[in-house]
Amino acid sequence: MNKIKVGIIGATGYAGAELVRLLVNHPAAEIAAVSSVSYEGQQLADIYPNFKKILGDTLISADELISRCDVVFASVPHGVSEELAVKCADAGCVLIDLGADFRLTDEADYQKWYGKEYKHPELHGGAVYCIPELHREKLHDCPIIANPGCYPTSIALGLMPAIKAGIIDTDHVIIDSKSGVTGAGRGLTQGTHYPDTNEAFAAYKAGCHRHTPEIAQTLSELAGNKVKVTFVPHLLPVNRGIESSIYVTLNEKGKGYDADALHNLYEDAYKNEYFVRVEKLGNYANIKNVRMSNFCDISLHLDTQSDTLIISSVIDNMVKGAAGQAIQNMNIRFGIDEKAGLLTLPAAF
Amino acid sequence: MNKIKVGIIGATGYAGAELVRLLVNHPAAEIAAVSSVSYEGQQLADIYPNFKKILGDTLISADELISRCDVVFASVPHGVSEELAVKCADAGCVLIDLGADFRLTDEADYQKWYGKEYKHPELHGGAVYCIPELHREKLHDCPIIANPGCYPTSIALGLMPAIKAGIIDTDHVIIDSKSGVTGAGRGLTQGTHYPDTNEAFAAYKAGCHRHTPEIAQTLSELAGNKVKVTFVPHLLPVNRGIESSIYVTLNEKGKGYDADALHNLYEDAYKNEYFVRVEKLGNYANIKNVRMSNFCDISLHLDTQSDTLIISSVIDNMVKGAAGQAIQNMNIRFGIDEKAGLLTLPAAF
Amino acid sequence: MNKIKVGIIGATGYAGAELVRLLVNHPAAEIAAVSSVSYEGQQLADIYPNFKKILGDTLISADELISRCDVVFASVPHGVSEELAVKCADAGCVLIDLGADFRLTDEADYQKWYGKEYKHPELHGGAVYCIPELHREKLHDCPIIANPGCYPTSIALGLMPAIKAGIIDTDHVIIDSKSGVTGAGRGLTQGTHYPDTNEAFAAYKAGCHRHTPEIAQTLSELAGNKVKVTFVPHLLPVNRGIESSIYVTLNEKGKGYDADALHNLYEDAYKNEYFVRVEKLGNYANIKNVRMSNFCDISLHLDTQSDTLIISSVIDNMVKGAAGQAIQNMNIRFGIDEKAGLLTLPAAF
Amino acid sequence: MNKIKVGIIGATGYAGAELVRLLVNHPAAEIAAVSSVSYEGQQLADIYPNFKKILGDTLISADELISRCDVVFASVPHGVSEELAVKCADAGCVLIDLGADFRLTDEADYQKWYGKEYKHPELHGGAVYCIPELHREKLHDCPIIANPGCYPTSIALGLMPAIKAGIIDTDHVIIDSKSGVTGAGRGLTQGTHYPDTNEAFAAYKAGCHRHTPEIAQTLSELAGNKVKVTFVPHLLPVNRGIESSIYVTLNEKGKGYDADALHNLYEDAYKNEYFVRVEKLGNYANIKNVRMSNFCDISLHLDTQSDTLIISSVIDNMVKGAAGQAIQNMNIRFGIDEKAGLLTLPAAF
Repeated sequence: MNKIKVGIIGATGYAGAELVRLLVNHPAAEIAAVSSVSYEGQQLADIYPNFKKILGDTLISADELISRCDVVFASVPHGVSEELAVKCADAGCVLIDLGADFRLTDEADYQKWYGKEYKHPELHGGAVYCIPELHREKLHDCPIIANPGCYPTSIALGLMPAIKAGIIDTDHVIIDSKSGVTGAGRGLTQGTHYPDTNEAFAAYKAGCHRHTPEIAQTLSELAGNKVKVTFVPHLLPVNRGIESSIYVTLNEKGKGYDADALHNLYEDAYKNEYFVRVEKLGNYANIKNVRMSNFCDISLHLDTQSDTLIISSVIDNMVKGAAGQAIQNMNIRFGIDEKAGLLTLPAAF
Repeated sequence: MNKIKVGIIGATGYAGAELVRLLVNHPAAEIAAVSSVSYEGQQLADIYPNFKKILGDTLISADELISRCDVVFASVPHGVSEELAVKCADAGCVLIDLGADFRLTDEADYQKWYGKEYKHPELHGGAVYCIPELHREKLHDCPIIANPGCYPTSIALGLMPAIKAGIIDTDHVIIDSKSGVTGAGRGLTQGTHYPDTNEAFAAYKAGCHRHTPEIAQTLSELAGNKVKVTFVPHLLPVNRGIESSIYVTLNEKGKGYDADALHNLYEDAYKNEYFVRVEKLGNYANIKNVRMSNFCDISLHLDTQSDTLIISSVIDNMVKGAAGQAIQNMNIRFGIDEKAGLLTLPAAF
Repeated sequence: MNKIKVGIIGATGYAGAELVRLLVNHPAAEIAAVSSVSYEGQQLADIYPNFKKILGDTLISADELISRCDVVFASVPHGVSEELAVKCADAGCVLIDLGADFRLTDEADYQKWYGKEYKHPELHGGAVYCIPELHREKLHDCPIIANPGCYPTSIALGLMPAIKAGIIDTDHVIIDSKSGVTGAGRGLTQGTHYPDTNEAFAAYKAGCHRHTPEIAQTLSELAGNKVKVTFVPHLLPVNRGIESSIYVTLNEKGKGYDADALHNLYEDAYKNEYFVRVEKLGNYANIKNVRMSNFCDISLHLDTQSDTLIISSVIDNMVKGAAGQAIQNMNIRFGIDEKAGLLTLPAAF
Repeated sequence: MNKIKVGIIGATGYAGAELVRLLVNHPAAEIAAVSSVSYEGQQLADIYPNFKKILGDTLISADELISRCDVVFASVPHGVSEELAVKCADAGCVLIDLGADFRLTDEADYQKWYGKEYKHPELHGGAVYCIPELHREKLHDCPIIANPGCYPTSIALGLMPAIKAGIIDTDHVIIDSKSGVTGAGRGLTQGTHYPDTNEAFAAYKAGCHRHTPEIAQTLSELAGNKVKVTFVPHLLPVNRGIESSIYVTLNEKGKGYDADALHNLYEDAYKNEYFVRVEKLGNYANIKNVRMSNFCDISLHLDTQSDTLIISSVIDNMVKGAAGQAIQNMNIRFGIDEKAGLLTLPAAF
């Protein structure tokens, strides 16, 4: 069988480099080209010396890349992907967009949170937002896959069984998330300068992070009604990993569930999902147990005094939160085993 | 003026060593003795080489220490302090207990959470639980000061103005705290072994941490009614610092407050408190800005969509959360300037 | 083709767990059994939750394990492997020993540095010490492979081309190594307790580390004369990685080499070695570029003022320094592609 | 007594901010002004929120600052200090320069390593380079103090007793240093971006770091002959601290010294120096034991096999390596107790 020819636009960003790292060994895909605006003409291994002797590719333009590929992964600043989508459509290749441009179903949300209008509204109907465990059946033959954000992935997987079972109050969901610093990207900022980040910890963008509408959209769709979310991200002094602690109140139906019943509900919801692991009662999801892998680990605790279900959901923000999930989506879209290229085990240390 | 003679029992634990670090330069106190069960007869500087050439003291027994001191700081496992209190009473010296034995006003709480009964119930009436900013007027001539826990300190200071103003729903307070690893003590555990802790992050004791009744007690006292708390601590891969993200819903009265009004309320509540700093609106409290200091920094954000007030409160768990606050309490108890010995500036890097 | 049946004794130590992590996806081997003295009867995934849903194996006894395997990896305290070797010999399976018991060719060295005598001296003749890039042709049909130590691997690979070319003074080689904390193992010690290790840095066992005779033995064998080594390891506050900075003086022959010539010498020496990468002149080997991989990166700098060649050699201590190299040795021993199971790319972040 | 009026130029850099942190509590000095080119007109506490409520100063111009002060600390890029020195001379205030412009006695060295010529050669005669433990008697009434570099301080203190005793071969000194990331300054670079620095380790500027001529100059002066140095710095993933491992060969005289004699030599050389602590034989200097303090800890190990003396010297690069030593120099210059303002104890965790 011919391997799928993949291209990576924005290959020098962290998500792009992670795609490269994972795709080099993909059994059914091969990297046909890598692209970068900032480093065009240089070798990727000059920017990422970990790739030396493994990948000799020179960074080319996006246009040239598109002409060589069956599928294009784009990890670019918001506002750029629509143009890429037009070109991919012309070239007949699938676009998997790791940015936000195709995630929101309501253009008004996009305008409000990103301050831009769609230039090609007609494209958005062909885009499918896909967390595989929730939406894989929608993927079929779509030309554009909107790869979900890192925080939204950890949160939607953490809440899906409870929301679908209709056991929680969706009027108010409180989410306290913590993300490793790769989530902030490779670009230099004072807030990610080592001595300013190391041994530090703080919230940021409380209630105003751009992932908020995406979270609300996904949860509302699951619930069948508008879900209100308070989302507060924090910067965690580690390289990789997101932990989302989610606090929801059990509704009348939910009060009929004790900890065991809640656990069974989650086990059952994910019993056919390889990449989601529900912790035994009493255990805690820890980012170290999913590091370098595509797993999402979820633990559950019940505060019976206040009927609060406490869900802790962890992922590697670079894998299940970005590059890994994008590959999982590619696999589904191209009819390959969903786990292909994603079997590296988590490294606990 | 004669300096206050202080003794530190449990000087080889982290809180004990931090007391030594701060007290060596206290202008009105001098370390008369240090004690340790495990290392009796050795020099403290052999266990903590950072003290070499500064403190030549040999670790002695608690009994001998008590006989030499005006005030005794005890940082010992729970269940041990009552006996020390008896001895301090006999010797006529003040006990400042950094443990939990004298914190809870209701013995039933102590029994439930610590699994022990009081052996000397008569002593507990003489103990004053004191976060100085909330309770300093109670301190007077008490023989025992119950020094507050680290998490409860960050949380009570973060919530006091809102609770006292009666603007939040006290039926349900959600607290997501993160603590540096010194909070787990100097004792060895797999969970604090470097490779298991570094680049890791997880919740622990969700809804069942022993600081929960202390938090509820302090908040309820402030509110004048029972406050229900969901408290979830997390282990943060840094040495020092606690950040508590607190989520409360504004009640009818509270809905009349916008972000500015909330900020003014807090500024006003703490305008005479040197050690509490309220961040400008838009800024975030960060553990690095209080490191090595006795400050508590608080930032406020309002999620207007859900009328949720998001409070972030940070302290250095070893200083304001333990040794520093204990010294602050000593200063008040002995009529000294509250800030004495606590003026070292935070080190942001 | 039938897969090689492998067993891992000491599977709950870091090296053992790393073997599991890498072997689960090995194309030509399968984990037949895992063993642990401390945790016998438990599931490995209970001790390492990162393995949950991936490996359901229960930890069994070493004896039972040996009976099921073609090859046994042992990662056990020194002094234990000889008995295992006897049992493996009886069972007709190959032993790959990650400990020190079979590394030293001179029993006197073993007695001096490990304080024990050989109980089965007859076994040692059948053991082959193998850094594949230096000794793979010796491996043939040996019943025992002595897998090299982490420090010695980084050092021998860093020095081999210079020593073989006869261009350095072997009277005195100075080696300043730094190792991540996994190198100290999973056992709890004060020196690896997170708050004692984080933000700390110091040398340890200067001139008296047990890897010293192994280093001297390997270098002397390469040189054809006794090489004198001053070896000083340091504990580096990261999870993984060893960097060895090696200082050698160019001899008369060596003074004929400029930086380019030295670089060519190294490039040439390793031109057929996939797992050794020589940095371009001007670049520096960095542990992050080999993390999670079996690569050894080497950079060269020449201090012309003192004719000192400065070699920096980096490996992942858990992979090329332990589990990865052991698998590489297994592959060679069983006639498989040396890279099998070792193709995961380094993760630079 | 009137307090000394001090000004800090470059107050928003790390060394500048550290000067502020230490000087706020100096018993005999007061901060009269702080200056910054980049942030003029803003409050220092806006850039460093750790200073909020402690220091309300607005950042002013260097010229205005000089007019208000008795002593000016300058922490500015090289090439800028000469102009400041002219202005300080005009204003009659002492300049303590934390940069390199006045450190090298031979202008040729400056030209070679910094690529610039002196614009005011006449000023350099009035500048005194001062590591207090080595040069304090030279300080007298000088108008300019050249504050030493961080690496050179750790190295010169580590070598002084051995060089002065004439027991080592000064033909070749090998120095392997490791510095925390604050040493690279507050400016943003890819190499100090958190995910690129955390869990990473590498050498940099091997044999070509600009501190090399300063190190050689100081050691040569101590030796009375030219000392040849191979100096290789490494970037250490911690905020603060320098560890220098120094390898020297004992000469004929030195071979008469065993470990105890070497230890006695060092103890004796530093017996009157508060800020230098010689470790007991067998112990290792650790950066954590000097953190946040002005101490230099030194440990000694002897490799008898090769007559190599291994010296490990540690300092906090921000304190003894920069701001603290500058204050120590100010104290000496103004006839104050050398330890004034520098008594904060090291924080081991």
